[in-house]
Amino acid sequence: MEVYDLIIVGGGPAGITAGIYAQRARLKVVLLEKLGVGGQIVLSDDVENYPGFRSISGFELMQKFEEQARAFDLTIVDCEVTEIRNEDGYQLVQTHDYDYKTKTVIIASGARSRRLGVTGEEEFIGKGVSFCATCDGFFFRGKDVLVVGGGDSAITEALYLAKIVNKVYIVHRRSELRATKILQERALENPKIEVIWDSVVEEITGSNTVEGVTLRNVVTDELVEIAVSGVFMYVGLLPNTEFTDVEKDDSGFIITDMNLATSVAGVFAAGDCRTTALRQVATAVGDGALAVTSVERYLNS
Amino acid sequence: MEVYDLIIVGGGPAGITAGIYAQRARLKVVLLEKLGVGGQIVLSDDVENYPGFRSISGFELMQKFEEQARAFDLTIVDCEVTEIRNEDGYQLVQTHDYDYKTKTVIIASGARSRRLGVTGEEEFIGKGVSFCATCDGFFFRGKDVLVVGGGDSAITEALYLAKIVNKVYIVHRRSELRATKILQERALENPKIEVIWDSVVEEITGSNTVEGVTLRNVVTDELVEIAVSGVFMYVGLLPNTEFTDVEKDDSGFIITDMNLATSVAGVFAAGDCRTTALRQVATAVGDGALAVTSVERYLNS
Repeated sequence: MEVYDLIIVGGGPAGITAGIYAQRARLKVVLLEKLGVGGQIVLSDDVENYPGFRSISGFELMQKFEEQARAFDLTIVDCEVTEIRNEDGYQLVQTHDYDYKTKTVIIASGARSRRLGVTGEEEFIGKGVSFCATCDGFFFRGKDVLVVGGGDSAITEALYLAKIVNKVYIVHRRSELRATKILQERALENPKIEVIWDSVVEEITGSNTVEGVTLRNVVTDELVEIAVSGVFMYVGLLPNTEFTDVEKDDSGFIITDMNLATSVAGVFAAGDCRTTALRQVATAVGDGALAVTSVERYLNS
Repeated sequence: MEVYDLIIVGGGPAGITAGIYAQRARLKVVLLEKLGVGGQIVLSDDVENYPGFRSISGFELMQKFEEQARAFDLTIVDCEVTEIRNEDGYQLVQTHDYDYKTKTVIIASGARSRRLGVTGEEEFIGKGVSFCATCDGFFFRGKDVLVVGGGDSAITEALYLAKIVNKVYIVHRRSELRATKILQERALENPKIEVIWDSVVEEITGSNTVEGVTLRNVVTDELVEIAVSGVFMYVGLLPNTEFTDVEKDDSGFIITDMNLATSVAGVFAAGDCRTTALRQVATAVGDGALAVTSVERYLNS
C-alpha cells in the first residue's frame, strides 16, 4: 500500500493553503474534498477583509486559490472521508472508495451552517429556506425575506439580499447585533432592511413553499406573524469533524496547541474546524501554512 | 489627552491586516510605522505562496494591502516608537514627536536581517554588502556575487540574482539547505548558481568596494578566497522589539498565548516579532486579524 507523507482533508482556504505549502515542500500529498474546492466562503457574495483584495466574491477568491494550488501540481481528489484511524504508527484515512495510508494528516474540514430546529425548516429547504443568499437570493427578486442571525454572515448576506429583494427583515434574539461595526452601520442605514430585535423564529409556515414565519419576542413572549417568501439562516456553525476522534471541545471543534497539533501524534487541524477565537479566510490561510510547517517538523523528527 | 482604543505598531502584513480589521470594527485606531508601509516583504522580488496571487512582488502585494487599508480610512502615521509604558491601566506609546494614550496595543513591528559580525561587513554596507537583492541586485549586472545563508530568503534571492549577475555563489555553513524543497531544486539546477557547503564567511575584503571574501570550511578549517563584487546576507532575523518590555524569548521575540496576548494586559503581538514556528505573509495576516478580535474582547470585558 502506497504511503503518503500527508493527507489534507478539506479544500477550503485552510486546506488549499496547506496544499500550496506542501507541494512547495515536495511532500507526497493528496487533498481530499467532498463537495468541490472552496469551502463555505464560496457562499459569500463579497469578501472585503482578505488582505490583497479590496472586494471579491468568495467564489472568485477560491478560484484563485485553486489555480495557484494546481499550478504547483497539487492532486485534489473528490471524495468524502468517513474515518481516520491510527494503525501501526500510520494514519489510515478512509473514504467510500479508497483508504489512504499516510504519515500525517491535516484536518481542514471546515464547518457548516447550524439549523434552527424549528417546524417547517427541514420541510422547506430549497422551497424558501436557504443557507446561502448568494446562491438563492435571485429567486426572491421583488419579494420579502427574513434573515435569521446577528453575526457577520447574517448581516453581510442581508445587505446582499437588500440589493435584490423588496424588503429584508433581520430577526435577532438579542437587542444588539454581534456583527462587525461597519456591517451593522450599513444594515441599520439601509432603508430596505428592518431589524426585529429580541426575537426568535417559532415556526416557518406555508403550503408548497414558504409563505410566512411566526416570531416570538423573548422579552414579552408575544407572537407575531410576518409574511415572507424566503428565510435565510445564519445562526452559527457546526464543525465537520464527525469522522475523527481526536480531542474536541463541547461543540465538536478540534482542540489544537499553538502549532496546530491535535491530541493524536501526526494529526494536525487548521481553519474553521478547530477551536479558535476567529474564523476568517485570513486566519485559515495562516493555519494552513503553519500546519504544513508542523507536519514537516513531525516528519523530520 | 486623547485616548485611543488601539495603537498598532508596525505597517507590515500583520499590522496592515490589523488596521483593516480595526477600521471595520470601528475602533479609534492609529497605525505607527517608522520606515514606510510594507515591512520586510517589500524586499522580496517574488512571492508565490501568499494564497490568491500566483506570483507577485512583495512591493506590489503590500501596495494592495495599503490601498485596502486606506479604503477603510485607516490613519497611518510615520514615526518611530521608542517606548511603551503602562500608566494607570492605559498604555502610553511614546514616539519622538508625540505620546499616544491607548487602551490596547498590537505590536506588529516585525524583524530585520541579522548581521554576520565579520570584518568588512559594516564598512562595506552600500558598497557591495547588501541585505536586499531586489533593491541592489541591479548594480551587480554581469558580476559575481555571494549569497550567505541557506533558508528560503537566501535561496529566493539567489535565484533572483542569477537572472542579473554572471555568477552566484551561495555559502552555507551546513551540508544541506534549509529552504523549501522547490526552492532548493531550482537553485541546484541553475547553471549560474554554485553552492559552497559547510562554509562560513571569515572576512569581506576590498579597497573602496567589496572585491572578495575569505571563506572557512567548518569541517576542514581550510580557508579559500573568492573574488566577488557583492555579498548578500540572509542569515536570520532579529526581532524589532527593543521598545517594549513585555515577556520575550531568548532571541527577543515576544511570547504570546494562542489569542496573541502578551504578558502585559491590553498588549498583543502579531506577525514576525513574536515567537512562532513560521514567519510568512500568510501567517502574519492571520495574526493581524486574530489580534483585533482579541483587542475587541479585551475592550468589551
